[in-house]
Amino acid sequence: MADTPRIIQPRTLKGFRDILPATMLAREELLEQVRGVFRAHGYCPFDTPALEYTEILLGKGSAENDRQMYRFTDNGGRDVALRFDLTVPLARFIAQHAGGLGVPFRGYHIGSVWRGENTQRGRYREFMQCDFDAIGTESVVADVETLVVINDLLDALGVGEFTIRINSREILAGVLEGAGLAERAVPLLRALDKLDKIGRDGVATEMMAEAGVDAGQADTVLSLAELDGSAGEVLAGLAELVVDNEGGQRGLARLGEIIAAAKAAGVADSRLAVAPAIARGLDYYTGVVFETTLDELEDIGSVCSGGRYDDLAGLYTKQRLPGVGASLGLDRLLAAMDELGQLPARSTAAPVFIALFDPERLHEYLGLAAELRRAGIGCEVHTEAKKLGAQLKYADRRGFQLALVMGEREWERGICQVRTLASGDKCELELKTLAQDLGRLLGEPRAGSRFTTDSTAS
Amino acid sequence: MADTPRIIQPRTLKGFRDILPATMLAREELLEQVRGVFRAHGYCPFDTPALEYTEILLGKGSAENDRQMYRFTDNGGRDVALRFDLTVPLARFIAQHAGGLGVPFRGYHIGSVWRGENTQRGRYREFMQCDFDAIGTESVVADVETLVVINDLLDALGVGEFTIRINSREILAGVLEGAGLAERAVPLLRALDKLDKIGRDGVATEMMAEAGVDAGQADTVLSLAELDGSAGEVLAGLAELVVDNEGGQRGLARLGEIIAAAKAAGVADSRLAVAPAIARGLDYYTGVVFETTLDELEDIGSVCSGGRYDDLAGLYTKQRLPGVGASLGLDRLLAAMDELGQLPARSTAAPVFIALFDPERLHEYLGLAAELRRAGIGCEVHTEAKKLGAQLKYADRRGFQLALVMGEREWERGICQVRTLASGDKCELELKTLAQDLGRLLGEPRAGSRFTTDSTAS
Repeated sequence: MADTPRIIQPRTLKGFRDILPATMLAREELLEQVRGVFRAHGYCPFDTPALEYTEILLGKGSAENDRQMYRFTDNGGRDVALRFDLTVPLARFIAQHAGGLGVPFRGYHIGSVWRGENTQRGRYREFMQCDFDAIGTESVVADVETLVVINDLLDALGVGEFTIRINSREILAGVLEGAGLAERAVPLLRALDKLDKIGRDGVATEMMAEAGVDAGQADTVLSLAELDGSAGEVLAGLAELVVDNEGGQRGLARLGEIIAAAKAAGVADSRLAVAPAIARGLDYYTGVVFETTLDELEDIGSVCSGGRYDDLAGLYTKQRLPGVGASLGLDRLLAAMDELGQLPARSTAAPVFIALFDPERLHEYLGLAAELRRAGIGCEVHTEAKKLGAQLKYADRRGFQLALVMGEREWERGICQVRTLASGDKCELELKTLAQDLGRLLGEPRAGSRFTTDSTAS
Repeated sequence: MADTPRIIQPRTLKGFRDILPATMLAREELLEQVRGVFRAHGYCPFDTPALEYTEILLGKGSAENDRQMYRFTDNGGRDVALRFDLTVPLARFIAQHAGGLGVPFRGYHIGSVWRGENTQRGRYREFMQCDFDAIGTESVVADVETLVVINDLLDALGVGEFTIRINSREILAGVLEGAGLAERAVPLLRALDKLDKIGRDGVATEMMAEAGVDAGQADTVLSLAELDGSAGEVLAGLAELVVDNEGGQRGLARLGEIIAAAKAAGVADSRLAVAPAIARGLDYYTGVVFETTLDELEDIGSVCSGGRYDDLAGLYTKQRLPGVGASLGLDRLLAAMDELGQLPARSTAAPVFIALFDPERLHEYLGLAAELRRAGIGCEVHTEAKKLGAQLKYADRRGFQLALVMGEREWERGICQVRTLASGDKCELELKTLAQDLGRLLGEPRAGSRFTTDSTAS
């Protein structure tokens, strides 16, 4: 007997995963929508390598990022690492290319990032980010545009109503300065950011422990979180808190301007909330900050967050490059849509299955398939001439909508038997107008078409 | 003076590169076309992680692949590596999921791969592959479908005429067997594969040196390369060479069947060539093999290659999984299109630029932009209220097609000044029918639209 080769157990690394067709199809269609929105706003795509010199990445995120980095020495002896986010590569990219590209630069960057995170709670070690930024401008127009893009993204993805929560780091700084707490801003805002997670008392306790403030001071900062109501009402409340602080007033005026302009740009009032307790990424944000929650799934947290930064690329260039941007959490959104039952259960984007009923007629089946594709109708000719029942079972499992069955009798009469796989309904259509009639039966969706939630079969 | 922070030189690793907007825009649009063709043929997307256990990848490609692998020990002490192709991950994927997915499985897989290659001759260490495969079937239908997909891909990408060269490993094996050279197939076919590169004499010399054959035997193998003419003529020539060999005859019959069926499926005669000297990837191909060259740029080599394999996943499962597939060399194609002058020079997919002429009117500009986007016309409101000349210069550099200029006078009269950036032409349009009129001026292409080569500005 010959040696039996050893079977290697097929498996992915802990914290990594394969993406199966149904999910991948939804992800691709979401990405198509996302790119469409970015482009419609003048943002242009760019890409950076997965691997960078460790020197470029290290110490640029949090200490946690450094610990979680996939870092190694390559075959050429270089100290390299996989990117852990898209922000640091963007900073390096823009420092390197701003001269050639010119500013303002509106770019979007879609790609995987890698973090050796704790894999509990459904976190993965490889996930996709979709960042967009306008760099080299301090204009309020760029702040507004960021907000409008967030609005249009969530609108296009069709995940129900949502709320964009806006705040300003200038206002936060003003309030802290007014209370004589400017020096303790970092631990105070880090604690404040946890309000949704650990509640008011938890935040107060952490502020006292980590920032060394007393209960009264913690209370002053926490009073920010009590401001509630319409955007106008919250802005009025904030005005009182920064009455003596110039920076805070400047931030407040700008925030008001952004909100008014966003409305003029078509963002519904009901989708905008001023949320004075949002601080976000303490390291580089300096102006407006955003978070976006889905009204039906608030507890999954923000699906699109960002803000304005004063100088992203200062570590790599002396050119000052202020900007504003945000990041769409595509994988989180995909999980949310799954939870809301908004993902189609199909694993094919082609709606039509052609049974290989009479293998002698292969050329005719293939010719018909080509004709349907030319008319924009995706289809698959089955590879195996099995019994019809087995073929239809396969088609149903894959999520095809319609199956075409043609034997001797049908070919001779110039007709085609059409079965709706979900219902089992049958009808006969004439071959000479088949593409047209199928188009009508299928309604809008087509192979390669935009994401539609109503095209699920099976 | 405060410390001046050290500036880290912004740079990418040797062999890696950033992809700038104009190229990235073209790549994204090509990928959109590619996905559309895959889907129209019933292929569904899936994805696998960039990182795998080294055990999964090592020794599955060539020894060169092993040497070039980015391999390291992760923070959890695992021996891991970045994938160097998409074929090995596909094999692991299908071994792991065939049960759940069912066969036949038609899948496509688009992603980056990493190889620490010699970086001469414009090779990169990170590049993108687009693979598609039909697995779990021995049907000739799957072979034909692969060929039709290759045809439709190249057609959709609009890179001019092309030739799909087809051969059969069964015929090659038959010819070698007939000449008593079956045992020396590997070095002989490896040498034969170099015919285009080193010529007839070079191949003969290599065959004698590496396979230990004499000049007459080398000649017999090389006679394959002399068969020329239409597909029918070459098939007839091959028939003579395998007249005594059953396997060779089987391969020949199947090849004829594939070609006839491809024609029935609409592949033009002129695009199909039988090329008896093509052997390809000696390790796993067992049946039909394909290569595709662009008629205008033959010297860049094959842009889409593949073939049939008997058992892809044998290393990871006892289930036999034969299949057929091919890989589109997207980056090579992109370079070719660049050479043919088929890449647009724009770095925006939005065709319309709105000058921020009168900052007091920001709300009106933003409102107009929202209206145009709703009508499917991508646009950007400029962020800086600079002099008009500077704004138009920026717009021209980015590759916008039209610039809209509106000041006091225009807003009051309800009109808009429209400048064609490439030509400098001006006209006036009424605001109330602007979206419609701009649509006409712009012709077909839209933000987020399909790839069109005639929409270049500047």
